Amino acid sequence: MPYRAPIRDFRFLLDHVVGFAEVAGTDRFADATPDMTGAILTEAGKMCADILAPLNQIGDKNPAHLDNGIVRTPPGFPDGYRAIATGGWIGMSAATEHGGMGLPMTLTTIVNEMMSGACLALQLNPLMTQGQIEALEHHASDAIKSVYLPKLISGEWCGTMNLTEPQAGSDVGALRTKAEPNGDGTYAITGQKIYISWADNDFTANVCHLVLARLPGANPGTKGISLFMVPKLIPDADGNPGRKNDLRVVSLEHKMGLHGSPTAVMEYAGATGWLVGPEHGGMAAMFTMMNNARLGVGMQGIGTAERALQHALAYAQDRKQGRADGTGAIIEHADVRRMLTTMRADIYAARAIALMNAVAIDMATATHDPAWTARAAFLTPITKAFGTDVGVEATNTGVQIHGGMGFIEETGAAQFVRDVRVSTIYEGTNGIQAMDLVARKLMDGGDAAFRLLDDVVRGAEAAKATHPDLAHAVWEAAETLREATEWLVGRPDLNDRFAGAVPYLRAFARVLGGHVHLASAMAGDTGHLRLATFYIKRMLPEYLGLLIHVREGAADLAAITADDLAAA
Amino acid sequence: MPYRAPIRDFRFLLDHVVGFAEVAGTDRFADATPDMTGAILTEAGKMCADILAPLNQIGDKNPAHLDNGIVRTPPGFPDGYRAIATGGWIGMSAATEHGGMGLPMTLTTIVNEMMSGACLALQLNPLMTQGQIEALEHHASDAIKSVYLPKLISGEWCGTMNLTEPQAGSDVGALRTKAEPNGDGTYAITGQKIYISWADNDFTANVCHLVLARLPGANPGTKGISLFMVPKLIPDADGNPGRKNDLRVVSLEHKMGLHGSPTAVMEYAGATGWLVGPEHGGMAAMFTMMNNARLGVGMQGIGTAERALQHALAYAQDRKQGRADGTGAIIEHADVRRMLTTMRADIYAARAIALMNAVAIDMATATHDPAWTARAAFLTPITKAFGTDVGVEATNTGVQIHGGMGFIEETGAAQFVRDVRVSTIYEGTNGIQAMDLVARKLMDGGDAAFRLLDDVVRGAEAAKATHPDLAHAVWEAAETLREATEWLVGRPDLNDRFAGAVPYLRAFARVLGGHVHLASAMAGDTGHLRLATFYIKRMLPEYLGLLIHVREGAADLAAITADDLAAA
Repeated sequence: MPYRAPIRDFRFLLDHVVGFAEVAGTDRFADATPDMTGAILTEAGKMCADILAPLNQIGDKNPAHLDNGIVRTPPGFPDGYRAIATGGWIGMSAATEHGGMGLPMTLTTIVNEMMSGACLALQLNPLMTQGQIEALEHHASDAIKSVYLPKLISGEWCGTMNLTEPQAGSDVGALRTKAEPNGDGTYAITGQKIYISWADNDFTANVCHLVLARLPGANPGTKGISLFMVPKLIPDADGNPGRKNDLRVVSLEHKMGLHGSPTAVMEYAGATGWLVGPEHGGMAAMFTMMNNARLGVGMQGIGTAERALQHALAYAQDRKQGRADGTGAIIEHADVRRMLTTMRADIYAARAIALMNAVAIDMATATHDPAWTARAAFLTPITKAFGTDVGVEATNTGVQIHGGMGFIEETGAAQFVRDVRVSTIYEGTNGIQAMDLVARKLMDGGDAAFRLLDDVVRGAEAAKATHPDLAHAVWEAAETLREATEWLVGRPDLNDRFAGAVPYLRAFARVLGGHVHLASAMAGDTGHLRLATFYIKRMLPEYLGLLIHVREGAADLAAITADDLAAA
Repeated sequence: MPYRAPIRDFRFLLDHVVGFAEVAGTDRFADATPDMTGAILTEAGKMCADILAPLNQIGDKNPAHLDNGIVRTPPGFPDGYRAIATGGWIGMSAATEHGGMGLPMTLTTIVNEMMSGACLALQLNPLMTQGQIEALEHHASDAIKSVYLPKLISGEWCGTMNLTEPQAGSDVGALRTKAEPNGDGTYAITGQKIYISWADNDFTANVCHLVLARLPGANPGTKGISLFMVPKLIPDADGNPGRKNDLRVVSLEHKMGLHGSPTAVMEYAGATGWLVGPEHGGMAAMFTMMNNARLGVGMQGIGTAERALQHALAYAQDRKQGRADGTGAIIEHADVRRMLTTMRADIYAARAIALMNAVAIDMATATHDPAWTARAAFLTPITKAFGTDVGVEATNTGVQIHGGMGFIEETGAAQFVRDVRVSTIYEGTNGIQAMDLVARKLMDGGDAAFRLLDDVVRGAEAAKATHPDLAHAVWEAAETLREATEWLVGRPDLNDRFAGAVPYLRAFARVLGGHVHLASAMAGDTGHLRLATFYIKRMLPEYLGLLIHVREGAADLAAITADDLAAA
């Protein structure tokens, strides 16, 4: 099961579709020259293909496990991790001050997609660290920064996120973990956390847990939550790992996929922690980390989908069945080709949307223009939910293309389905993403949405002369989506928005997909035009049914009873 | 993980939606009185809930395995099988002449759905036997019938289908297994078969393999294929299992799901076989078996979806997260309720379509009216593909409703996803079903399709007075589908049909779903109306995008190159 990094796509999208030149043109990101960008794509792609990709199936077959309280990772994972760390890929967007490369998030996003496609279970580890680095950069004291950031950026140590408790999943505000002042500026952290990805490993010198907990007398709900750095080994005066902290991995979960990644129940028994950010201000820091992670999880979906496509395409070109034209391989059958092209067109759309998102983040960083910040915020739930939905759908289609072999684990296609399944759930379920989109992200009266749609319409108008059919289809979709957005903005009862939130997010992704495919057709070769034609004529029209759904509101849905849902 | 048989739905659909009274009113099925039907639903439901359902997770955790060449099944499976066999559920539609009950396929279909929901891996065994019984009834000699049918019907022996070879999957005609006359009326069967479901077990006294093979000098392709009965143990003069035949289980596959069901590579080394049906006429007999199995596999999708719904509904009523109204459980959140209602409405539609299909089979059997035969033939690929697509989608939604717990195997939700995944592949992939629908099943110029749509339109007209909005939506969908069907019928190049075959099949299912939901709203209570409203207003409109896709034809798709599909 080889993997080839999709470098051709990245180059084309950066140069012709998502406007990366604007990022590279800022003072902040002046280092991101075409040469530097090219070198990064090449080097990271090489590592992913040569070192990480062969670990993927090994991780599935040799799950991470607990051995007398010690987490053991699959064979090869320590070497794979070291390749990621020494390549500088963990901290490439971290500030140079602590050893990062200060490069645009757009490039980190690209490298994250490639690493996800190569070995999702391992890539989840540096993804968590990246989120932690960003949270510390924005919210930690200088003392904490100077101890932790250099080691996290180098990969010597790694980081985790500890939010979830048994009674507090999507509802983070229900958490009960306690933090009590020790009187010396530190806190004693006590409680149980679940679903902790990469809670421990056998290849980093320390593991740094960012833990949400409640101070004595804190308000209930999210306003009473604070964030703490709780290292596995407490750094000594020189910043080296010292005595063991009072925390432990209780158990690891037996999961549907991602077997190579240890997912733990963690117990904190008065563990020593340091406050990050202000008291009761934990959610802000957590959102910094989560937003970073949401973009990253979107890339996990896209990367896994890309791997599944490469796998299915190779099979379809090789496997002979029936009276097919041309080569005689099943790729010549119309329905197999429909499946492959659907995968490809969806992955392309999701990838381009994610890079638009990353560019908006970088432009916001470089210019502090609130319009860029708003665009980044609006696109993040779309990148996360659509990217991971494409992950689930494309990997399933990949199995389907393999026929009976797809169901046999040896083939490898089934692993992609199993691994990527969690991506629509963690870092906020895709339902939560959609609710965020229609509620918080429309609190501007739809301004960020309408600005995006203005860009779509402008793109369609520019394409009218050369591609009238495609341009008209995209234009009409954008205007229908604008009307649905206006309808949503006009609903004071949020439940009327929530009832159609998931179809709305998907329709928005479909329309943005039309936009990026049309832009590619304008700038690219006949291959881009063929792919854009398939997407715009056959896939984009899905928005019609979706937007009818969006505008039904909540009343009929709220009237459904539990008994209506029972057939027995 | 309890399971409750969806008896309320079955009763309602039989009485008010799919016209089962017409079946029970025929001489052929006069035994299927309301009392008899009620007893069957109750008894089968009880067995499924009490005996089979507890085996489901056991089968997943204790896979069937080879032990010195002997297949060992999961703990409890032998008892579960005996409950199915002694209940008479295997041969309930088999002719009374050899011990069957001669009941309508509609009732077998219902029991098959219930057994699938209870324990899919085990139910696959009697499903294979049922297909074999029907193939023997239609095609075998009296001598074979008298030896095999009584024991297959009683469940003392079980049956398998041996079609696939490594180079011959969807393209059955490529098979190479040889059958050479032994001179005594028997044949020596030599070759390898793969993906043989329930190729052996440790609870039946014999296993009867129906094997497709090629006689010396036979034509290439499907016209040179004959069918043979090849028992594991050769019956002696009294019809009891005698000497071991020259066949063996080479290995079992390690699959994504259905771990309780052994899937084997079989080797036939000059095994003794008996011809079933005429020389070179194997495909006809195989299609009898496959059509039966296709309806049955559709029920596997629906049954597993129902189980996933019950599981998710219980979780959603129990789990508290966030500020929900009412009970405070997550079912009160609009998006969770949207997911549950989508599952429910889709399962209901698929179930009703499957029962329409079974009623058409029974009416064809009872009346020999070719219009019923044509309707049954038209509906079979829809039942199979839509039923199993709903299986995949609803089980995935079930995982999503569980949030992080859905990804943990202990919860059980993930097993449904893994188990049902193969149902869109075996017995003809869903792509093959769709190609069958737009090619063979439209060879009548669309007559069967148009008759179905006439019924949909009639139903909509009857509902106009009381439910004008719903009726109009269904009417409009039916007419749009009629136009798309006319377009397809007018395409002489089958590739133009194949390119849109999958979206066409789904659109047809969507419209039939509108029809059955509308009929339920007309005949049922306010709960049926609420469900119909949700389906017709929010889910039915999917047909709009699908039918645009259908009418795009093959040219643009055929132009896509392998290079267009590569991002690297």
